[in-house]
Amino acid sequence: MSGRDFLAMEDWPVDAIDGLLELAARIKRGEVTGGLERKVLAMVFLDPSLRTRSSMETAMFLHGGHALALEPGKGSWAIETELDTVMDGATVEHIIEAARVLSRYANALAVRSFPKGSDWATEREDATIRNFARFATVPVINLESSRRHPCQGLADALTIREHLGDTVGRKFVLSCAWHPKPLPTAVPAAAAIAAAHLGMEVVIARPVGYDLDPDDTAAIEKLATSRGGSLSITDDIDAAIEGAHVVYPKSWGSLLHFGNAESERSLRADKRDWRLTADRMKATAGDKGIAMHCLPVRRNVEIDAEVLDGPQSAVIDQAENRLHAQRALLLEVMR
Amino acid sequence: MSGRDFLAMEDWPVDAIDGLLELAARIKRGEVTGGLERKVLAMVFLDPSLRTRSSMETAMFLHGGHALALEPGKGSWAIETELDTVMDGATVEHIIEAARVLSRYANALAVRSFPKGSDWATEREDATIRNFARFATVPVINLESSRRHPCQGLADALTIREHLGDTVGRKFVLSCAWHPKPLPTAVPAAAAIAAAHLGMEVVIARPVGYDLDPDDTAAIEKLATSRGGSLSITDDIDAAIEGAHVVYPKSWGSLLHFGNAESERSLRADKRDWRLTADRMKATAGDKGIAMHCLPVRRNVEIDAEVLDGPQSAVIDQAENRLHAQRALLLEVMR
Amino acid sequence: MSGRDFLAMEDWPVDAIDGLLELAARIKRGEVTGGLERKVLAMVFLDPSLRTRSSMETAMFLHGGHALALEPGKGSWAIETELDTVMDGATVEHIIEAARVLSRYANALAVRSFPKGSDWATEREDATIRNFARFATVPVINLESSRRHPCQGLADALTIREHLGDTVGRKFVLSCAWHPKPLPTAVPAAAAIAAAHLGMEVVIARPVGYDLDPDDTAAIEKLATSRGGSLSITDDIDAAIEGAHVVYPKSWGSLLHFGNAESERSLRADKRDWRLTADRMKATAGDKGIAMHCLPVRRNVEIDAEVLDGPQSAVIDQAENRLHAQRALLLEVMR
Repeated sequence: MSGRDFLAMEDWPVDAIDGLLELAARIKRGEVTGGLERKVLAMVFLDPSLRTRSSMETAMFLHGGHALALEPGKGSWAIETELDTVMDGATVEHIIEAARVLSRYANALAVRSFPKGSDWATEREDATIRNFARFATVPVINLESSRRHPCQGLADALTIREHLGDTVGRKFVLSCAWHPKPLPTAVPAAAAIAAAHLGMEVVIARPVGYDLDPDDTAAIEKLATSRGGSLSITDDIDAAIEGAHVVYPKSWGSLLHFGNAESERSLRADKRDWRLTADRMKATAGDKGIAMHCLPVRRNVEIDAEVLDGPQSAVIDQAENRLHAQRALLLEVMR
Repeated sequence: MSGRDFLAMEDWPVDAIDGLLELAARIKRGEVTGGLERKVLAMVFLDPSLRTRSSMETAMFLHGGHALALEPGKGSWAIETELDTVMDGATVEHIIEAARVLSRYANALAVRSFPKGSDWATEREDATIRNFARFATVPVINLESSRRHPCQGLADALTIREHLGDTVGRKFVLSCAWHPKPLPTAVPAAAAIAAAHLGMEVVIARPVGYDLDPDDTAAIEKLATSRGGSLSITDDIDAAIEGAHVVYPKSWGSLLHFGNAESERSLRADKRDWRLTADRMKATAGDKGIAMHCLPVRRNVEIDAEVLDGPQSAVIDQAENRLHAQRALLLEVMR
Repeated sequence: MSGRDFLAMEDWPVDAIDGLLELAARIKRGEVTGGLERKVLAMVFLDPSLRTRSSMETAMFLHGGHALALEPGKGSWAIETELDTVMDGATVEHIIEAARVLSRYANALAVRSFPKGSDWATEREDATIRNFARFATVPVINLESSRRHPCQGLADALTIREHLGDTVGRKFVLSCAWHPKPLPTAVPAAAAIAAAHLGMEVVIARPVGYDLDPDDTAAIEKLATSRGGSLSITDDIDAAIEGAHVVYPKSWGSLLHFGNAESERSLRADKRDWRLTADRMKATAGDKGIAMHCLPVRRNVEIDAEVLDGPQSAVIDQAENRLHAQRALLLEVMR
């Protein structure tokens, strides 16, 4: 991996992340222009996107560069991600060539690859993004992999700083939310890592059976502690939200049932109450805690419409901050 | 809605439309450059496009800006357009967040959304484009909705002016055409409104049962009359075309059978003669009336190849004018 | 066809091709900037692409221009390619209008259209690309048609020159490779024409039944001879590779069984040994012949991983050279 890959926020020195957040704030104030003239970002979308694609494409354009969007399996060839393979099946392009070739056209690659398999032991290796990074000869940016969504994490940290100012010791609650489908854990892990980076009192409220990957939990705790914060885990959502400065409801699937939609469905069946309601928002710090979400969000399923559209919602600011955070990241990675 | 939304031509003051047409003519003569530097247009295509996408993307580029193209349900998330809903079904992103978030990345949104439902009472509300306009915080441009295609209307007006010079009192015939499928009424309504704006003698020739929505007919008549023209409706296509300066054949489905393809099919079965033939073109004013069509057109079904490829065809000029009209519109909307 | 269409390398005077290759080399050295400001390339992808789309889009951007990517049948309308037709079926947009309209928005068109039919007599006419060229009013660039892939050919020639220096009389082996599916002959024909242009000793090694179209073979031989080289054809892959300076393994289907996948499958069943192995590379000139491939390549099926990832592989350079060759081509075609 190149020294400049951005695969996970905690891979970078904390000072470098703080530098990015400061640069992003300056960019948002309109103090930074140019810097990516004649630079190209090749984006590989193995999964859909609205915010990520729009904000990355806009970010490159605003600084004079250009972002390519490829969709393997649709407009471009289906990519083989197994390294040692005899390619006599359905895939047409190998990840080794894809990474090497795109490195010749672009100054950085950006890859979105959600977990697909039925096996967490495999998916947790994050092989697709890591192999792109291994074989690319330019920096690789993670646009959400099986394990992490660090561009989201940067935007989350920027948003929390804007709304709270001082963040050390403030209460950040990642609260698991019901959803019709088991979703990946990349966003909740990234959000908790962002809060940990800010030295917050991180609380993960989740039903029993919905723990994040133990390595992720350990990474969150280690970072939070080193930054003056802490990590605790509970299955009492209401106690968690009491006095919270930030509530970040987000759905994810049980890793114990990963790839087994049927058994996961029975586990989640009685959890529709894991929802961020207007009442719960009243229990936040001074009734003024903010609600965050990476979007897209299931209205009235993960979060009540009243919360999403109300004064405590930070979700649109948070989406906007994807743009500013990524402009900082791209300037840093491609300079 | 923002004061600068462009959802229907008749929403804007007539002077503003005349100003756009004059600006478009100056742009076509090469007299206008720049003006959209660092500006972004986010285009949301819920339906396919060739001219619209190409001309919008080119328009932004030629003035220094950039157009994003999103395709919800393909490369980006399927959009929920019902406002009050519990999102536990198939849609992933709500229109409220989509509109608000894209407003943070772009200086204007542009949306294409054809009618989908089986119920004209619902579709005539044009909820998708109107809700994008309601929740966006930047101007919204209609790239064809259930009811209107005003960018096409602008290009139509520009084309008619170029070919005819004086337009007041000249005869414009919108003639219904047979087609294998029942199409929306957005283009015929927009074309007739464009001709009405030019003060033309607007004639709608259609088989019985193929009237446009009564509100659209009323809007056409009101505008035509106020501009020195008129509206009449007939089921005699040959009498209509006699002496016409412009013939605009276009297929649309019967609103009486909207959403009922089977009964609509029997109604249209005997109407294959509703076609713009070379013979009919000879009956136009001085044998020199022009044939227009928004494209794509079914060759030898809506219009004979001999007409499309002949000297009276204005369809390629008309498509080119999408570019010039939209360059004017974008400069006006984003300035 | 416009004088500046680029449909096949052999359509252009040899001096013009040499000029392009020299310009491409200067571009690669960083000696050429600008030249496509306010220019637009409209790319029509009837088939998927990774390199072609990325390199074309990057090429336009690096010189100040913009490339549009349209995907008829997906984001844009399905295109009818039959000229004399009554369009009452599934296709929506006729190639005549598509070519004429895009010519009004863009300074050049670029079209990818693989063979689709079940009949080589029809497909060999290359009707789609030739009709785009016939009806467009701006230059048309072939991004791979049924018969040719001349942008690949340019990149191949540039790569061979870079690696070999002097090319006249050097041995170029196009060796047919086994593949799970019968592929088109456009790339092998284009590669052999590129080598012929360089005056190489062109050897086509293929199993009996896998001859290229006789007109293509004749074109290769004529060009090779006129440039100081030669053409020979053999079914002995090992004899062919002996002493080769360049080995270009590439799969293609038997034209004798074109469109008949079942009978083709039995013909190819015993040919899995038609693969470029590490052992075979040791038989090349001085053990240092280079291996080329247009990509995407089936690893361990067409070429061994050891060869692809080894020091004799030129496939990544070759892919990079698509960019430089096309930058030269676009500057030439649009000036």
